[in-house]
Amino acid sequence: MAPGREIVCKAAVSWEPEQLSFEDIRVAPPQSGEVRVRIVHSSLCHTDITFWKGKGSFPVIFGHEGSGIVESVGENVDGVRPGDHVVSVFQPECQDCRYCKMPKTNLCVVAFAEVKSWAMLDGKTRFSAMDGTPIHHFLGCSTFSEYTVMHHSHVAKVDPSVALEKICLLSCGVPTGLGAAWNIAKVEAGSTVAVFGLGTVGLAVVEGAKTAGASRIIGVDIQPSKQRIGEDFGLTDFVNPKDYNDKPIHEVIHELSGGGVDYSFECVGNPKLMVDALNSLHAFGSLIIVGVTPEGQNLSFDPNILFFGRQILSGSLGGFKIRSQMPELVDKFMTGVIDLDRYITHNLPLSRISEGFGLLLEVECVKCVFSH
Amino acid sequence: MAPGREIVCKAAVSWEPEQLSFEDIRVAPPQSGEVRVRIVHSSLCHTDITFWKGKGSFPVIFGHEGSGIVESVGENVDGVRPGDHVVSVFQPECQDCRYCKMPKTNLCVVAFAEVKSWAMLDGKTRFSAMDGTPIHHFLGCSTFSEYTVMHHSHVAKVDPSVALEKICLLSCGVPTGLGAAWNIAKVEAGSTVAVFGLGTVGLAVVEGAKTAGASRIIGVDIQPSKQRIGEDFGLTDFVNPKDYNDKPIHEVIHELSGGGVDYSFECVGNPKLMVDALNSLHAFGSLIIVGVTPEGQNLSFDPNILFFGRQILSGSLGGFKIRSQMPELVDKFMTGVIDLDRYITHNLPLSRISEGFGLLLEVECVKCVFSH
Repeated sequence: MAPGREIVCKAAVSWEPEQLSFEDIRVAPPQSGEVRVRIVHSSLCHTDITFWKGKGSFPVIFGHEGSGIVESVGENVDGVRPGDHVVSVFQPECQDCRYCKMPKTNLCVVAFAEVKSWAMLDGKTRFSAMDGTPIHHFLGCSTFSEYTVMHHSHVAKVDPSVALEKICLLSCGVPTGLGAAWNIAKVEAGSTVAVFGLGTVGLAVVEGAKTAGASRIIGVDIQPSKQRIGEDFGLTDFVNPKDYNDKPIHEVIHELSGGGVDYSFECVGNPKLMVDALNSLHAFGSLIIVGVTPEGQNLSFDPNILFFGRQILSGSLGGFKIRSQMPELVDKFMTGVIDLDRYITHNLPLSRISEGFGLLLEVECVKCVFSH
Repeated sequence: MAPGREIVCKAAVSWEPEQLSFEDIRVAPPQSGEVRVRIVHSSLCHTDITFWKGKGSFPVIFGHEGSGIVESVGENVDGVRPGDHVVSVFQPECQDCRYCKMPKTNLCVVAFAEVKSWAMLDGKTRFSAMDGTPIHHFLGCSTFSEYTVMHHSHVAKVDPSVALEKICLLSCGVPTGLGAAWNIAKVEAGSTVAVFGLGTVGLAVVEGAKTAGASRIIGVDIQPSKQRIGEDFGLTDFVNPKDYNDKPIHEVIHELSGGGVDYSFECVGNPKLMVDALNSLHAFGSLIIVGVTPEGQNLSFDPNILFFGRQILSGSLGGFKIRSQMPELVDKFMTGVIDLDRYITHNLPLSRISEGFGLLLEVECVKCVFSH
């Protein structure tokens, strides 16, 4: 297919909250700075579902964890060509703005321009329904489509020998968890860790802590089956709060860790759990907030608990400058440092995406990967 | 005076909250690991007043910022001898426990043993009234006495050529502020800073930020006279919230700093100000909580504000391992990097300590130093 021409393909369009329609759409050619990609695989993240349940600008194509092959590029795109294998990333990295040039943040000014418009940088969309109705973009990615258009700052080039059906996982959830352990907490060998919530991100924190050499990794989840899953990833201990009646969970963790852990990670987005995680630390431990909290809920605690050096850290996408660091992540996958297979519990064709949305709410599902 | 004998001297005894009595007391000889010091100068800190107003174990001798000369030592005291000049420090550093050996904390296990007893490590006091009534210790120091007994972990040896009437300020408030900027925030050259509350600690943060090369230092205080005082220490801008009616103070700071500061310091202990300080940061700035909050008040905020990497840091005594680092601090004073004179606005004999307590509530008083 030549660049410069509109493509008609299949996509999962949400015309309204909690609705999905697998249908033909039109995808415009990429404009200046943009890349059109044939998405080959994508995976589903809870953030897709959160916005699908009502916070989005509809109609919209969700999905932000994708892998594929560049079909065409617009003007002013350096470093990526048709035929290149790429992974989509929701947090842009233009590699040129003042933030991208600062070592201490992975923020990029492109994010601010896109975040409110649910569109490309020019404020317009590249998707339309067959009747011409514009369809919004999601997080600069919209990977639940056979073809998508992304600003090049959302596209990380990868080695073409790497399995596309695996590395779509390097888009969001897995690096968010790994980076929370590696980049934000900077977990050291021998340290002790508690992880609240064992979904994809929590399990990736466990994997990150294990590869960093943590001596004790305590998982906290209310689903008993998460014990076995978590142990596969490196848990040394599992705590189900339901097993402890009224005993505060931080007391259980203090007993297990001999006085509190060095690092606790909240991967759910529940302010009450954040307080439990804060209380689970020893006097100068670090709470890392990874979960995104539903609107209108506050975190509330006595600030004197921080007196001896407890701290609260956070950061998006595990603190990775993700386009620049994608080769490192791919290398860690190829050399077996991280094991992406372990996260993939389900595979479905994209046409059955509705089933995938249902699966994610089931306990046994960590990641569902769609084939396009 | 020979070691091993009880001393009778003058001290400021609080027999009950908000009461002070300058009277004769008995000071027992130092026991194993302890040092008896003739306090020559001391200064008053808000923490003394907070506990004096009702949180203490009475009767008690307050004061924790002191300088003096070692009179005698008990057994098992290394590194300090009679005649040595020393500064008292409220946060112990035994230099031998597991915490003291960790680079990432300035906590010491001695603190845990002392904190609840208001006494020495054996649970007993070394002070008594003339009728034999035991008098409690305060923060391991009790410097509002002509003689005091401290565990050696509370005693930092200093060069005898350094003015004792100045370096009592290196006990608590000044290093707390300097270290908040240097050790906890790690303010870099060119960075932007907001300081909420311009008492001794806030002014020391300003001095710390200035010496670290901050390009913009914005002070926030409701007392207009703090502008002139703060500018002496290095403020580039002063914001009095009372001048802005209903305009949120974080908006004023965003305008002054071009989108939010790199570091904001809360030096009051007011959770509402902490939220203002958090909101005054750019997307990945750091809030440093320096102020101690009165009991029963929570800090409450939407944790999603941390998403792009905002963080909340804290730590006691500016993160200094204070006995080990006291020579560095003294050197910075001697070479003019820090100017202790600027903090000392009042001098009084210890016998007039009641006046000193009143002075600290006056706006123009930064530090009152007592001569014993």
